[in-house]
Amino acid sequence: MNNIVSKRIRQTPPSFIRGILKAAESEDVISFAGGLPNPISFPQEALKESMDRVVTDYGSRVFQYSTTAGLLSLREYIAEKYRNQYQLAVEPDDIIITTGSQQALDLIAKVLIDEGDNIIMEEPGYLGAIQAFSQYQPHFCGVTLLEDGPDISQLEEVLKQGNVKFAYVVPNFQNPTGLTYSEEKRKAVLDLVRKYHCILVEDDPYGELSFSGKVNGYISKDGLEESILLGTFSKTVTPGMRLGFMIIKDEKLRKYINTAKEAADLHSNIFSQYCLWDYVIHNDLQKHIQKIRELYKEQCQTMIKAMETYFPAEVTFTRPDGGMFIWATLPEGQSAKDLFDKAIQKKVAFVPGDPFYTDGRAANTMRLNYTNASKEMIEEGIRRIGNLF
Amino acid sequence: MNNIVSKRIRQTPPSFIRGILKAAESEDVISFAGGLPNPISFPQEALKESMDRVVTDYGSRVFQYSTTAGLLSLREYIAEKYRNQYQLAVEPDDIIITTGSQQALDLIAKVLIDEGDNIIMEEPGYLGAIQAFSQYQPHFCGVTLLEDGPDISQLEEVLKQGNVKFAYVVPNFQNPTGLTYSEEKRKAVLDLVRKYHCILVEDDPYGELSFSGKVNGYISKDGLEESILLGTFSKTVTPGMRLGFMIIKDEKLRKYINTAKEAADLHSNIFSQYCLWDYVIHNDLQKHIQKIRELYKEQCQTMIKAMETYFPAEVTFTRPDGGMFIWATLPEGQSAKDLFDKAIQKKVAFVPGDPFYTDGRAANTMRLNYTNASKEMIEEGIRRIGNLF
Repeated sequence: MNNIVSKRIRQTPPSFIRGILKAAESEDVISFAGGLPNPISFPQEALKESMDRVVTDYGSRVFQYSTTAGLLSLREYIAEKYRNQYQLAVEPDDIIITTGSQQALDLIAKVLIDEGDNIIMEEPGYLGAIQAFSQYQPHFCGVTLLEDGPDISQLEEVLKQGNVKFAYVVPNFQNPTGLTYSEEKRKAVLDLVRKYHCILVEDDPYGELSFSGKVNGYISKDGLEESILLGTFSKTVTPGMRLGFMIIKDEKLRKYINTAKEAADLHSNIFSQYCLWDYVIHNDLQKHIQKIRELYKEQCQTMIKAMETYFPAEVTFTRPDGGMFIWATLPEGQSAKDLFDKAIQKKVAFVPGDPFYTDGRAANTMRLNYTNASKEMIEEGIRRIGNLF
Repeated sequence: MNNIVSKRIRQTPPSFIRGILKAAESEDVISFAGGLPNPISFPQEALKESMDRVVTDYGSRVFQYSTTAGLLSLREYIAEKYRNQYQLAVEPDDIIITTGSQQALDLIAKVLIDEGDNIIMEEPGYLGAIQAFSQYQPHFCGVTLLEDGPDISQLEEVLKQGNVKFAYVVPNFQNPTGLTYSEEKRKAVLDLVRKYHCILVEDDPYGELSFSGKVNGYISKDGLEESILLGTFSKTVTPGMRLGFMIIKDEKLRKYINTAKEAADLHSNIFSQYCLWDYVIHNDLQKHIQKIRELYKEQCQTMIKAMETYFPAEVTFTRPDGGMFIWATLPEGQSAKDLFDKAIQKKVAFVPGDPFYTDGRAANTMRLNYTNASKEMIEEGIRRIGNLF
């Protein structure tokens, strides 16, 4: 069947990570490879109460077909949260509920990219986005991500070339690096994308997982007209229900996205939208998030301490203030894939950096997830990797 | 923003039906426009029990990220059902759970269609499919749907032209017509698509809603190698949870679809997959379906009787043996859209046939849904339309 499938899908990388995860799956492997939230972040009992309540209160409406944009009361809750927490003038009509943030990435690419269009990606960048965008055959313009945000002169260089459909950024505790943009970089990015009229896609799955509790604002805060904001409940309530959202002020663009969403799955699971909405209005979500922050902070500190102890000094790594990942860099010329092959022999796994770049390089970098392992496992796993150097 | 969106989305029709549904939404309108299952088909109490049970039994697994192909136990249930009910050699590995059948249509188009490729559609055909396929800019080859299935000489004509990526068919109680392929037509279709090595996409959302209880087999029953079968739980359990499935024997094609599915939403709502699986193993689904059949049969007969009474003899219409829709044809030259405009003044709605054709014709046909109105409303609504002739 190879010769009958579309050019588009032949150019889409199957997820490298899924293969890695398979190797990491067996019970006796200590895995830092996944990106799974800790089960502590699922408020199981409260969600169970919400399920019962919405069936009792709303009956057949929670099981019937529904509207493409999503449950109005959930969109009202999100709009209010964005007005209060981020001082953004968001209205319920600006919001489209998506089947996880992944769907938002697919819809953005579907609606904006014609073959050969330039799009801007952080380098390294989120691989789910690379995969979603690849399907529509763009030309990826990588902009190096430094400690405090993107390389601004590279960014302007790329924007100058023209025909850039959008810039995709993850400014808070980025996946895969854990890095966060500084205030100066945020302003510089905004100035540049506005100067060149390039749509800014701000993806923020991790912003609330800030160890200090301080939640950063959005880059686009002074004008959402040429921006798309993405959010999700996957890291704070449950990823299994696949609920994310897009905020789009531009009405025309939102209509196109709505049409694409309708063609993609008509609407997102309405039962889960009711549950989630019932959960957030009957429970203290901030208190729940605080619990997650405290756990992740401890896990992150444990991993950093272990890396300082067991890794040679030539291996550098990020020190995140939130989120779920640490990014390590081996000395120039060393292959993270080779290290992975040796590590898996010692029953420990991580993700070699390769799939986070759009240029297919053999990377000397690697991503380590700390949210789904105990302190003892983190310590032991890092010790085993340390022994391989 | 019009000038920055992709060519693909500019060529995708926003759903005509959504506009119509808005007009039909107000409480005092009798609507035959939607395609909503009757709430009787949602086993609310049993689903509530299943929710409680899966949270108790499986804990965090029902809330965590999961695999792209879908819950193994649900795929095992589907495979067994297809072996027993349809005598098809389906294995769990042949199945991918999708976010409703609509997602399956999007994935098929994404993976198979390059711009300009031919695809075969029934004329009239399912508008959700027309919308999903349009995004990938195929050339639609319409094949007229007759009382007993497609016009076979037209079908061969089109297949002879070559470069036909797939033929999309809804052989049982089709949407929008309610028509069902005869045994002879099924055989003729299979012979032709095999002769020309064209993939057959068999979509079967309504097959189990057979008034007589007799469930037809699949056209591809003697060889699934060049076929894709689609199924859904939307018409028998709940559409709100958005759960459908694809059966694909060809491993290469399945892998491509899996990659596209991963890029589209990682996986379908796993909580709902657990619920649905728990529901089907703890309840008698066949008995539940029997209840739906009896109700829809009565509603359909009521509508047919009313049409015989109140419509002029020049208006012809189908007499379905199952499913959710009746298709009516006005005398040549009359516009169903004009009739709709008059009908909505009288507070009754249906869908003019136009969006079910790929050639943008002004149609003299119309679709009437009978599953979501009482017998009294059906009688009264048809009477009102009858008065407009």
